[in-house]
Amino acid sequence: MSDSNPLFEKLFSVQEYAVRVNDVKHRMSRAGFDVIICQDPSNMCWLTGYDGWSFYVPQCVVVHLDEEWPIWFGRAQDAKAAHVTTDLPADNILAYAEQRVMHPIDHPYDELVDLFRRKGWANSQIGVEMDAHYYTARCHATLVNGLPDAKFSNNGDLVNWARLVKSEKEVSIMRQAGKICTATMNAAISKIRAGVPQNEVIAEVYRAQITGTEGYGGDYTSICPLIQAGESTSTPHLTWSDLSIPSDVLVMLELAGVRRRYHTPLTRTLYLGKAPEKIRNLAKVIVEGVDVGLELARPGNTCEQVEAGWQAVLNRNGIVKESRVAYPVGVGYPPDWGERTCSMRPGDQTVLKVGMCFHFQSGVWLDDLGCAVSESFVVTESGGERLCNVERDLIVVE
Amino acid sequence: MSDSNPLFEKLFSVQEYAVRVNDVKHRMSRAGFDVIICQDPSNMCWLTGYDGWSFYVPQCVVVHLDEEWPIWFGRAQDAKAAHVTTDLPADNILAYAEQRVMHPIDHPYDELVDLFRRKGWANSQIGVEMDAHYYTARCHATLVNGLPDAKFSNNGDLVNWARLVKSEKEVSIMRQAGKICTATMNAAISKIRAGVPQNEVIAEVYRAQITGTEGYGGDYTSICPLIQAGESTSTPHLTWSDLSIPSDVLVMLELAGVRRRYHTPLTRTLYLGKAPEKIRNLAKVIVEGVDVGLELARPGNTCEQVEAGWQAVLNRNGIVKESRVAYPVGVGYPPDWGERTCSMRPGDQTVLKVGMCFHFQSGVWLDDLGCAVSESFVVTESGGERLCNVERDLIVVE
Repeated sequence: MSDSNPLFEKLFSVQEYAVRVNDVKHRMSRAGFDVIICQDPSNMCWLTGYDGWSFYVPQCVVVHLDEEWPIWFGRAQDAKAAHVTTDLPADNILAYAEQRVMHPIDHPYDELVDLFRRKGWANSQIGVEMDAHYYTARCHATLVNGLPDAKFSNNGDLVNWARLVKSEKEVSIMRQAGKICTATMNAAISKIRAGVPQNEVIAEVYRAQITGTEGYGGDYTSICPLIQAGESTSTPHLTWSDLSIPSDVLVMLELAGVRRRYHTPLTRTLYLGKAPEKIRNLAKVIVEGVDVGLELARPGNTCEQVEAGWQAVLNRNGIVKESRVAYPVGVGYPPDWGERTCSMRPGDQTVLKVGMCFHFQSGVWLDDLGCAVSESFVVTESGGERLCNVERDLIVVE
Repeated sequence: MSDSNPLFEKLFSVQEYAVRVNDVKHRMSRAGFDVIICQDPSNMCWLTGYDGWSFYVPQCVVVHLDEEWPIWFGRAQDAKAAHVTTDLPADNILAYAEQRVMHPIDHPYDELVDLFRRKGWANSQIGVEMDAHYYTARCHATLVNGLPDAKFSNNGDLVNWARLVKSEKEVSIMRQAGKICTATMNAAISKIRAGVPQNEVIAEVYRAQITGTEGYGGDYTSICPLIQAGESTSTPHLTWSDLSIPSDVLVMLELAGVRRRYHTPLTRTLYLGKAPEKIRNLAKVIVEGVDVGLELARPGNTCEQVEAGWQAVLNRNGIVKESRVAYPVGVGYPPDWGERTCSMRPGDQTVLKVGMCFHFQSGVWLDDLGCAVSESFVVTESGGERLCNVERDLIVVE
């Protein structure tokens, strides 16, 4: 149906979606679920191809063991986007009434309850995403109250885990995202000078992110570009202002390249002026730690082993980093580009496999300053292979 | 403390926050709540000034009737952003341990439970935001299980409702956002031509949104810029691709200007080529309907009265629009710039007051095409006053 639309090109074949759905069904069987309800927009996209900025209202993809294809359930005015962006059979695209949007009493999932009853699924083992950003307390209460004979439990980010190992096609998209990220970070570095308002740097970042590179354009990022200067570098999630960047100051940038919802994030740190030795040394330790981490990111090693290698380099230099050092990336929607499964931190024994992609967020925040020189990488037989290619050091602009 | 930070300027006085908090406490008393937990990042910002892209992890602002100021509760690495962006007393900024972030068993709100116990609030009447985007089923379950003697109930978007009438200072910020929106929409209109890739238009939109206008820069928008061309105009939430815009086609744009998190959204529709009469007439009906709606948007009239005026113009021309025609706007964070309180639709008897701000989303989607010529406006004594100033018609590019 959507093949007649000249403004949307599907990214993956029907066969690739079939592989994904079958993998998910195997995981469901093992976990004892008859049906799962996926509201995480990344999971909706990965399972069906659905793409649209409609995740601010309740919507989901339902996977049942007995159904060949998932069911898309969403707002009436978004159902057509499901027809355009997915290969789902038309009967598997179900819309709820417009009047239920942001209504104090009626809720869209009242109609999802009706669907489950019609389908004979009211007594099922239902797996939900208890901690997905948009699966609100009210969404859950509506389902639990509407289906009192069903057994609800957390599906433990079952689909997120299925997304962890990327297909070859997915890795090729990640490489495209990496090229967009490289071009964007270099554009930002060229723009950052003392006296330039922060927002003008960010305007250039957005322009480069969306323009993309030769052959393919960019997509919106799940986290806005982050810039911090001076004292603000000690807190990582402040956003820009329109004040000018001072001189003799540390500037940190965190941003991603995105191709068709696939993210490669990257951080770089600049010093405007003559960089103090303390910062130059911190950057060198970080870069060495990343080298060690990526060398260890081989199939068979665990997440915690990679982290231990990185942490050993820090500790040898008198530094401790408390937060996890890496998390998986791939399809993302706001507010986060992490996949929320494994983390490279002590205790995480997830075994690495070829095709897993991570953001090695090698940032260190001390009391008075921070520094980060991170990498997005894909696990290959010979270790972590960088997806971006930007100067790996403290970037000094004198 | 943060006054020494040259990279952040606070927007509102401590006195304005005191007024807001007192208003909220009066609403809490009337509704029977001892304490409310606000996870909506817009509510957190409006109550305290807190601003940062940290809403992808659990965090909240807690307002208790017996406490002078709210308590900010969030991730350790974001606590410093709370010190920088708010005037809260340092003792009111409380951080949870980093290891609780995205952990399968531990949850950040285990520590919020501990806080409520320490404070003696374990038997309170607690109002939560059951349908706020980031208040997940797991957040709620953690609190309910941890505080079995408390009484939890939906606070009915109590703080969102308190945000509905803007102060003079807020309206002045909305006017700045409107100017950014005007400049951005005009930049987009100049860029849209047959043969131009969609992503290049969007790159220009982002550049203009963030660059802002003379005197003040722009902020990130809670919804990405939306562009649809041709058949895609019949579904409103598709995002751009890197395919080129064809000729003889309808193009729709929806985007906002944002100043310090305050949003003024706007939609415009273009025709590239000789516009068919059907579309030109639809645009004229829409513009007439907006004029009638804004004329009716006076203090004392209700939301449904305004909608009825707009709908009457449509019906007289043989058109029916099912979805609500307007929703309040102001502070926003992804994924939505609406305030989620009243809606201009049948049955909504919210009475308009001076200082309320709305997006009059006068879009009509027919089976084969859509058209929208919307306005953001503030309610004044003499009706709705537009916050943006972009040509009000179908924009034809021949």
